[in-house]
Amino acid sequence: MSTVKVGIIMGSKSDLPVMQDAADICKHFGVDFEITVVSAHRTPERMFNYAKEAAQRGLKVIIAGAGGAAHLPGMVASITTLPVIGVPVKSSNSIDGWDSILSILQMPNGIPVATVALNAAKNAGLLAVQILSTADSSLADKMQAYKDDLRRKVEESAESIEQY
Amino acid sequence: MSTVKVGIIMGSKSDLPVMQDAADICKHFGVDFEITVVSAHRTPERMFNYAKEAAQRGLKVIIAGAGGAAHLPGMVASITTLPVIGVPVKSSNSIDGWDSILSILQMPNGIPVATVALNAAKNAGLLAVQILSTADSSLADKMQAYKDDLRRKVEESAESIEQY
Amino acid sequence: MSTVKVGIIMGSKSDLPVMQDAADICKHFGVDFEITVVSAHRTPERMFNYAKEAAQRGLKVIIAGAGGAAHLPGMVASITTLPVIGVPVKSSNSIDGWDSILSILQMPNGIPVATVALNAAKNAGLLAVQILSTADSSLADKMQAYKDDLRRKVEESAESIEQY
Amino acid sequence: MSTVKVGIIMGSKSDLPVMQDAADICKHFGVDFEITVVSAHRTPERMFNYAKEAAQRGLKVIIAGAGGAAHLPGMVASITTLPVIGVPVKSSNSIDGWDSILSILQMPNGIPVATVALNAAKNAGLLAVQILSTADSSLADKMQAYKDDLRRKVEESAESIEQY
Amino acid sequence: MSTVKVGIIMGSKSDLPVMQDAADICKHFGVDFEITVVSAHRTPERMFNYAKEAAQRGLKVIIAGAGGAAHLPGMVASITTLPVIGVPVKSSNSIDGWDSILSILQMPNGIPVATVALNAAKNAGLLAVQILSTADSSLADKMQAYKDDLRRKVEESAESIEQY
Amino acid sequence: MSTVKVGIIMGSKSDLPVMQDAADICKHFGVDFEITVVSAHRTPERMFNYAKEAAQRGLKVIIAGAGGAAHLPGMVASITTLPVIGVPVKSSNSIDGWDSILSILQMPNGIPVATVALNAAKNAGLLAVQILSTADSSLADKMQAYKDDLRRKVEESAESIEQY
Amino acid sequence: MSTVKVGIIMGSKSDLPVMQDAADICKHFGVDFEITVVSAHRTPERMFNYAKEAAQRGLKVIIAGAGGAAHLPGMVASITTLPVIGVPVKSSNSIDGWDSILSILQMPNGIPVATVALNAAKNAGLLAVQILSTADSSLADKMQAYKDDLRRKVEESAESIEQY
Amino acid sequence: MSTVKVGIIMGSKSDLPVMQDAADICKHFGVDFEITVVSAHRTPERMFNYAKEAAQRGLKVIIAGAGGAAHLPGMVASITTLPVIGVPVKSSNSIDGWDSILSILQMPNGIPVATVALNAAKNAGLLAVQILSTADSSLADKMQAYKDDLRRKVEESAESIEQY
Repeated sequence: MSTVKVGIIMGSKSDLPVMQDAADICKHFGVDFEITVVSAHRTPERMFNYAKEAAQRGLKVIIAGAGGAAHLPGMVASITTLPVIGVPVKSSNSIDGWDSILSILQMPNGIPVATVALNAAKNAGLLAVQILSTADSSLADKMQAYKDDLRRKVEESAESIEQY
Repeated sequence: MSTVKVGIIMGSKSDLPVMQDAADICKHFGVDFEITVVSAHRTPERMFNYAKEAAQRGLKVIIAGAGGAAHLPGMVASITTLPVIGVPVKSSNSIDGWDSILSILQMPNGIPVATVALNAAKNAGLLAVQILSTADSSLADKMQAYKDDLRRKVEESAESIEQY
Repeated sequence: MSTVKVGIIMGSKSDLPVMQDAADICKHFGVDFEITVVSAHRTPERMFNYAKEAAQRGLKVIIAGAGGAAHLPGMVASITTLPVIGVPVKSSNSIDGWDSILSILQMPNGIPVATVALNAAKNAGLLAVQILSTADSSLADKMQAYKDDLRRKVEESAESIEQY
Repeated sequence: MSTVKVGIIMGSKSDLPVMQDAADICKHFGVDFEITVVSAHRTPERMFNYAKEAAQRGLKVIIAGAGGAAHLPGMVASITTLPVIGVPVKSSNSIDGWDSILSILQMPNGIPVATVALNAAKNAGLLAVQILSTADSSLADKMQAYKDDLRRKVEESAESIEQY
Repeated sequence: MSTVKVGIIMGSKSDLPVMQDAADICKHFGVDFEITVVSAHRTPERMFNYAKEAAQRGLKVIIAGAGGAAHLPGMVASITTLPVIGVPVKSSNSIDGWDSILSILQMPNGIPVATVALNAAKNAGLLAVQILSTADSSLADKMQAYKDDLRRKVEESAESIEQY
Repeated sequence: MSTVKVGIIMGSKSDLPVMQDAADICKHFGVDFEITVVSAHRTPERMFNYAKEAAQRGLKVIIAGAGGAAHLPGMVASITTLPVIGVPVKSSNSIDGWDSILSILQMPNGIPVATVALNAAKNAGLLAVQILSTADSSLADKMQAYKDDLRRKVEESAESIEQY
Repeated sequence: MSTVKVGIIMGSKSDLPVMQDAADICKHFGVDFEITVVSAHRTPERMFNYAKEAAQRGLKVIIAGAGGAAHLPGMVASITTLPVIGVPVKSSNSIDGWDSILSILQMPNGIPVATVALNAAKNAGLLAVQILSTADSSLADKMQAYKDDLRRKVEESAESIEQY
Repeated sequence: MSTVKVGIIMGSKSDLPVMQDAADICKHFGVDFEITVVSAHRTPERMFNYAKEAAQRGLKVIIAGAGGAAHLPGMVASITTLPVIGVPVKSSNSIDGWDSILSILQMPNGIPVATVALNAAKNAGLLAVQILSTADSSLADKMQAYKDDLRRKVEESAESIEQY
């Protein structure tokens, strides 16, 4: 079985500039991941197979990003038992992102999608790491270090403003 | 091959009071239809098979109604080449219907869904009849008669108000 | 009777860059179409006549695009028995497109408009082809080929990202 | 020529409970009016004729109320040169009234509709009286008296609360 | 008494590029107008006096444009008996224009404001002319000519697209 | 000079059930207040005078509640130099409260209104007390006690749920 | 260390009817949980301590529900390294739930909250189980059985409608 | 005890261009202030300590700006008894500012935040001065002068337009 833990998928290659952030977080935390394009609407069978085989292939979490009427995260969640993190992408013809957000967030009872903020693939990556951390204390320690780093950066910017 | 021309599907039995209107229009116009529950999220394989076989079974139009993050119309449209009419249903946990509308309407380029108004299954039925009318002039005549009837009802209500 | 099957109309010449996509789809599928400007508000009689004569002239489907308080699709649908596809156009003074969407989508019972996504004239063209396909199996085959092509393009972009 | 100055029309008899307020204001100010149902979508020719003949019949102002994708006020305004006052009605299948408001308010350049608040047929009546007042000083005096009365009622309610 | 019939006011000099359209329409129709800045929030007494004296000075219609929490049209309407036309202006810090629209449109019973579309000062000018036309048939004739011109321009653009 | 520190005003007597909460908070903290109806639209002069004299009469804070196109808080703020707290009231014809919120919150630069949540007259009262506390340490102590009480109530409800 | 894996907290006891669903899911899957009230705004120190000690006490996932300006899920996520699932609750004074949704979903980069649909505490429970399943294959099996059960219920309702 | 009366804090250094306006107003009125970065999400303990010590350090008012799911103003308000003014900042990933507005404005009963318009840090500064003015008549005089200046600037721009 592969060591890949996180599958990052997106509905269109044009989502890559947003979704790349999720991959970068995985790299930062030393978590093996894979990244590809899976379109619910243009490759429904590919989507089906991806979702069906994900757990068997050893994946632990799926991060799915899509824009507009974004069905990828919810459809993948309907097929797999893995936790699915949805990233609403503000695509070019989106109505200010509302369409992506609502079609990912408002899943019916029985089929959750863990939705993050508009374009927040970085947070999707962090959430995936947190999920893996529940069974891997070294990852939890790295997450604490990451948070400490966020804190220090704020403290530094605070100092620069106060002296300003 | 069956004589059924219109397939009416809905994401949940609770959508029936809304979707029944589409069936009633089919009956009124003498168009054979079938009606059932197909959930994109709870029965993804059933949805897949329904969409895949629809054209082969002789269906000409599919009417799909769903609420919340409503993926049924768009997913069926991604699999079949038949025209798919989407009915946004204002379900109990919907955010005023915006979620259903946007997740049905805002389909990406390549995969259209013919969306009607919130809860407007009657209009979905009429649109299905109009589509069939493009190859059946007797249906077109019935549609004209239906419109004449709408007109007469308005004229009658106009009279009742004017005398009021 | 002319061989033109699809009438493409728009409320203003400024909608042409959006509506051109519908014409391109018709060309791609070898469907005869006509394209012109018909304004519900500035040429109401022209709109009336266009809608009234469309079926007699042999048209099978009308695609109508408009922005702002977009009355063209709904008014044409009120006059003809043909299926009318509405394209909400995000015009310059539109409120993020909400006005176009709601004034096309929310038609009253009795008068459907098949609404597609904001600016999605390409999907309007595809929907028109699907409607004609219900009585023309060669068009249905072309539609299947079109979908296969969409699929292949996604698969190619998937490969390019995976190697990335 | 008739003495009727204000034409009150509505898209459906179900709008009467709202639109009645406009009629009551006309009565209060002694302005002759007529009231009837004219549906842009179900009786487009009746709408056309109504708008076309309104000025010739001596009408000075038209008040038009409608819900959902509300095209009546804008279409009437496109045909007549009279000022048209639009009343967005919150009908049963409306999306919180947003559809009615936007499809009446957001008219394109060249064709104004004087839009009032959601369900505010009373204000539509008052606006019609104000328009007539521009050429009738006795009506302007009555309007001043009406405003004085509003003021007095507030003053009375103020007293009742202060003593409370 | 002055011959000025239309008072055009705006909440800030930054609204001038939008409000200029109303002045241009007045010029086009040969209607005398005045134009100035009156801020409800920064010059409340000036606003009070302007509204109070408007009718006495011979004005027949007031056009008031403002952005954000736009109180100018409604406050002027509360003081004068003249018809007040409100122009919601999409100012720089506006929330997509929703704030201007709602704070002008949603006036309480008793105090109407004739609201036009976002930034639609041109339509405000046309509405003012229509109001004056109710007592001036030569203005009504000019308005008909204006509409005929709009029609001709659409017909010309139709031809250019059809040949395209 | 009177001992009244807080003036509570509302646009209509129908706002009293909401605005009463502000009065109750003043009573609870032993802060003298007055309460009355002042309508920006139906009693503009009364509003003017109220705002103009408020500081001279010894008031320190004004709480103003209104619904729909809610101009009262902003207009009072434009006239007085006192801090004005605005309470958006969800009135019967409001569009879900958005109109009240935006027409109170989105004040232009130069004229702030301290806006609280929809219908949150209780919080308006607390904010008035906090403002007075900046110069009255005994009020600040009472505010701390009030917060301690809120805390204790949550702790009690926590216990009841944990045992549940 | 306790066997409790999931902490369910809510901002107010009034959220219990919604949040109970999360507890019921935990019971159904045999996952130990605790449930209590923790208010970010009325018991900030309690919230701080809860979040700080959660991981040390052995919790693996926190489910936090809140309404209005819902800060509880985000603040807890800012303090702990555990995955936090946020449930937007449509409380009585909420603006149709938009406030809860946006203040939970739109977390800044660095601090994710796994947001589920409005009032969807059941899905929050399921997501918690899925997270625990990533390290517990027996839970994953139960989740598959749960999904199979959802499927069967839809199939049964499909049959009942088809016979209807 | 320090002479600093107003604490200006923001969630991120990127908010400085907006929040600087609040500092400039304090300078203009001769009110001592401090300005720094305090992030509710990345430095929760720093936020806690800042809020807890603010009153003891002599601060009278806190101005807090933040974007997205903006928890800083509300969390500070939950900890201090000082009046807290919230500035919704339209940050880069914000959904048109709605997220910042609603997560600051819609605070629950018991914990008010005095919310100003989107990006309106200038108004936050003015509100802080007004609050301090309730106990400092010289500040109230300066505020009157400030308003007189606003008035004069409008009058000047009015003249320039009238001559135009």
